[in-house]
Amino acid sequence: MASHRFDPNFTDNVINAMGPKTNPRFRQLMTGLIKHVHDFARENELTVEEWMAAVQFMNWAGQMSDNKRNEGQLVCDVIGLESLVDEITFTLAEEAQDIPTATAILGPFFRADTPFRENGTNIVRTPAKGGVMAFMHGRVVDFVTKKPLVGATVEVWQASTNGLYEQQDPEQEEFNLRGKFKTDNDGRYSLYCLRPTPYPVPDDGPAGKLLHLMDRHPFRPAHIHIIALCNGYKALTTQIFDRNDPYLTNDSVFAVKDSLVVDFVPRKDDPQAGLELNYDVKLVPSDEA
Amino acid sequence: MASHRFDPNFTDNVINAMGPKTNPRFRQLMTGLIKHVHDFARENELTVEEWMAAVQFMNWAGQMSDNKRNEGQLVCDVIGLESLVDEITFTLAEEAQDIPTATAILGPFFRADTPFRENGTNIVRTPAKGGVMAFMHGRVVDFVTKKPLVGATVEVWQASTNGLYEQQDPEQEEFNLRGKFKTDNDGRYSLYCLRPTPYPVPDDGPAGKLLHLMDRHPFRPAHIHIIALCNGYKALTTQIFDRNDPYLTNDSVFAVKDSLVVDFVPRKDDPQAGLELNYDVKLVPSDEA
Repeated sequence: MASHRFDPNFTDNVINAMGPKTNPRFRQLMTGLIKHVHDFARENELTVEEWMAAVQFMNWAGQMSDNKRNEGQLVCDVIGLESLVDEITFTLAEEAQDIPTATAILGPFFRADTPFRENGTNIVRTPAKGGVMAFMHGRVVDFVTKKPLVGATVEVWQASTNGLYEQQDPEQEEFNLRGKFKTDNDGRYSLYCLRPTPYPVPDDGPAGKLLHLMDRHPFRPAHIHIIALCNGYKALTTQIFDRNDPYLTNDSVFAVKDSLVVDFVPRKDDPQAGLELNYDVKLVPSDEA
Repeated sequence: MASHRFDPNFTDNVINAMGPKTNPRFRQLMTGLIKHVHDFARENELTVEEWMAAVQFMNWAGQMSDNKRNEGQLVCDVIGLESLVDEITFTLAEEAQDIPTATAILGPFFRADTPFRENGTNIVRTPAKGGVMAFMHGRVVDFVTKKPLVGATVEVWQASTNGLYEQQDPEQEEFNLRGKFKTDNDGRYSLYCLRPTPYPVPDDGPAGKLLHLMDRHPFRPAHIHIIALCNGYKALTTQIFDRNDPYLTNDSVFAVKDSLVVDFVPRKDDPQAGLELNYDVKLVPSDEA
């Protein structure tokens, strides 16, 4: 029963227009989406001008997107949707007794073509003004048995101290601050990187406009992106956050989880880095394993 | 109170991130939008893959949009949103005792630069295969006093018999099947046009993909678009539909209203047209008048 004063059959008519060949999951999603979008429009008595502004906004996001930038994703991120979908995924995995390292969003700056590097490599290929070097190392282990996983892949990426990832910044060498590492016979990976610094998400497009209209700052707390992969284990996408960061409690894309906050500690007798981060990654066996 | 098993504070955190300088109406809309989008994601346990497919879909719509095509608008149209917003607008006008000619959606094929033509002009500038000519005429009147309005503008546009508007079809002369007309001293306008024919909305992009996935046809019932304007009166955007059309009850963009269905009747002794449509437009005085 409709609890509003508009045409009580309108939404059902739109939903019922779906034909019998619609995929059941797609039908479920479209039914939910149409209901929520229509309820939103009715509850707020959305005007033609407001709706058209939203259409132009979304078209703008698409027009700004290309291989190097996904503005539609960023718009979702600033309203928390990517982090929420991640939390749903993680909660369902928990309920299925898969309690791996907590996940976090992929974000729009992942590159599928990042090269492998030797363990111990410095991923800082272009000097970063004011950057502080850190030695990041740890093991990839089986979540259940705690045994180290040999030949697992750990992929990391981070922004430079100017707040830009390499594909956003012509001054940075290609694949600067990115690398894939294979774990050795003890399941260990290691690299030199920057202590991450907070940065604003790109705010020269629709997502930035939205943040401005919502009177919000665009900053993300300092973090390093990680993807870990190993045959027979579920892929893990996450981010780790520096405990000292001032934006830890108000991430512009709502991705921080307590279990992903890490401590950089002083490192002695290493001319390459004054800080150290020891971070172990726990992977869950896949269903097929 | 959250009625789900996910983080109960997540959505409030996103909403409460809005700062004090947010425009109140914008805050209301974003609060509603964030709640509905988050509820949709939780209720359907949206996966990362499904969410990313939706992001790519919306980016695709933006990338396909330009001066001649608004695919984002068309995506809204096929889930009924433009027609719903129109119905909300019309219902609010009714409640305010403004009961003009029923409104209908603008659609994505309006052109702001359509030229004026003399009354009685034939807007069929490029021959239309299988087209049936009609003489369309009527008056623009004050909704309250019923008096004719002199010097009002009636703008019409329609698709050709191949289902294409002129800006979609390089074979059609520019501004074919479009025109603006000024009412004469009796408030009358007139033109020769085609009896409209049903056509599919463009289904070579995201909106067409969506229709296909929902197992729906892309057809719109035969219609003529109308915008009527007069100083001191509220602008009217509407469409009129041919009663004989087979798609009248299942318009792919849900725009049909009973009061907008019209009858083409035989016309005698006119070598230019065998059909006639008499259609009066009623305009409501604007608040300032």
